[in-house]
Amino acid sequence: MINIGVLGFGEAGSAFAAALAGHGAVVRAFDPARDQLDIKLPQISLAGDVKITFCSLAELLASSEIILSTVTTDAALTAAQNCVPNLGPQHIYCDLNSTAPALKLQLHELIQPTSAIFVEGAILGAIGVTGALTKILLGGAYAEELSKTLSKYGLNTAPYSHEIGKASTFKMLRSIFSKGLEALMVEFLLAGKKAGLEDDLWQEVTTLLAENSFDDVARNWVCSHGVAHKRRYHEMAQVSDLLSEMNVEAIMTDATTAFFKRSNDLDLSQDFVGKPDKMDDVIEALLRRVSQKP
Amino acid sequence: MINIGVLGFGEAGSAFAAALAGHGAVVRAFDPARDQLDIKLPQISLAGDVKITFCSLAELLASSEIILSTVTTDAALTAAQNCVPNLGPQHIYCDLNSTAPALKLQLHELIQPTSAIFVEGAILGAIGVTGALTKILLGGAYAEELSKTLSKYGLNTAPYSHEIGKASTFKMLRSIFSKGLEALMVEFLLAGKKAGLEDDLWQEVTTLLAENSFDDVARNWVCSHGVAHKRRYHEMAQVSDLLSEMNVEAIMTDATTAFFKRSNDLDLSQDFVGKPDKMDDVIEALLRRVSQKP
Repeated sequence: MINIGVLGFGEAGSAFAAALAGHGAVVRAFDPARDQLDIKLPQISLAGDVKITFCSLAELLASSEIILSTVTTDAALTAAQNCVPNLGPQHIYCDLNSTAPALKLQLHELIQPTSAIFVEGAILGAIGVTGALTKILLGGAYAEELSKTLSKYGLNTAPYSHEIGKASTFKMLRSIFSKGLEALMVEFLLAGKKAGLEDDLWQEVTTLLAENSFDDVARNWVCSHGVAHKRRYHEMAQVSDLLSEMNVEAIMTDATTAFFKRSNDLDLSQDFVGKPDKMDDVIEALLRRVSQKP
Repeated sequence: MINIGVLGFGEAGSAFAAALAGHGAVVRAFDPARDQLDIKLPQISLAGDVKITFCSLAELLASSEIILSTVTTDAALTAAQNCVPNLGPQHIYCDLNSTAPALKLQLHELIQPTSAIFVEGAILGAIGVTGALTKILLGGAYAEELSKTLSKYGLNTAPYSHEIGKASTFKMLRSIFSKGLEALMVEFLLAGKKAGLEDDLWQEVTTLLAENSFDDVARNWVCSHGVAHKRRYHEMAQVSDLLSEMNVEAIMTDATTAFFKRSNDLDLSQDFVGKPDKMDDVIEALLRRVSQKP
């Protein structure tokens, strides 16, 4: 029988606690906001038949081998500090909060002197959509073993790296794409709606990506960036002007224009006679030119 | 037999001229840069067996019923002005350059007094990839008839609107997505490469979009923007900080952070109790809040 303590009983904590308990783990939870928020009963009923015991932090630490911290980014450090006096070699402390890699390293250094094992966790995807099945990357020397255990008890974990910080870095850099695309699509539809064209535009884009793989479409654009950025910059400058005339605050579009302008200012096209086959040729050339920038 | 005159013999002009001549049209071309660039022979050989006659602008106008302008954005107005003295009711003048809708309207007003018919054209996609098969939207009162003719002679045209300017607006707003995604992917890979994670990141994103339709993924992000923007803003602020520590100039990422910050500053979440089913609910709410902004 395994004893798991969950710190913070919000969306992530309650989803994970329910899954773990449902797979036979003994789960204890501690949330300082639990009484005030009165979330005890609804959260437990959400979890179905499974039993989750709420207790004090001291009780939780005294009886759990694995501690999962699912508080919030801003509370991650305080939560760990509150545990430190009672942590020891019998504990694995896994921080699952969305924090920068530097904070994961700081937590590691804070916990190391207690002889507890520190594991960083990075939740990829949205708990609100995929619940306890949301993919979690684990990092640290003990990542592989903890992943085996948590997977057995219903979580979708995978070991990612021996180093602390890499899984969080991966998660954060993934957000460049996921959140960037979200902002892009919202701005695209916003401008489209102002022009009365949003349905046509959505249709055009989704058809393009239904008929071609995302990999092919995106790869072609990245590869052609080296040769086509100048023409595209001139086009984007017009698009930025158009949105400004339409009175649309073009946060993403202006950034796109600035992005192409930078490639143009850096004379990136000097590195290419034709479209390269590999995206990496474009990325390497751009990195080199950026680093040589006066 | 139809006589078509092509103004400007660059990438678009030469591809279209070859397709039209290959489908039996009599094609004349004029390019003031032709002699200097010595592009006559290679371009004609590119076109295979088909015959394209190079001539003066006056000859071209005297003998062509349809004029296609495929010069460049900055030369579009001058090209039309040079034609005006010799244009008459026997002509259809179709501007295919990538210009803003305002310039298409200006060209229309310039040409209208000559009694020639003006049609705007907006080329979607890349001639370099799809050649003469690249989709062209036509706009104006005569768009449908011209589209029938040009389709018969090998071009991939479609009538889009009776109004002049709408096809160009569509093309420009489409660029918010296509160029925005290109810039996003380049920055994503650039940051990924600096962190040594670019292959993992590309894999993660392309797998997500191979296993789910783009329509579903993007729709889910847009719909959840109304409720999740605050949490995502705090995450993106960390991502911006991380890129700054990594010494990556985060043009697109900083814009994404600013985009989520605006939704947060506008209190967009006040409009939603849960994730709406329709993207339009988010777009309408955001438009309303932006317009009420002091």
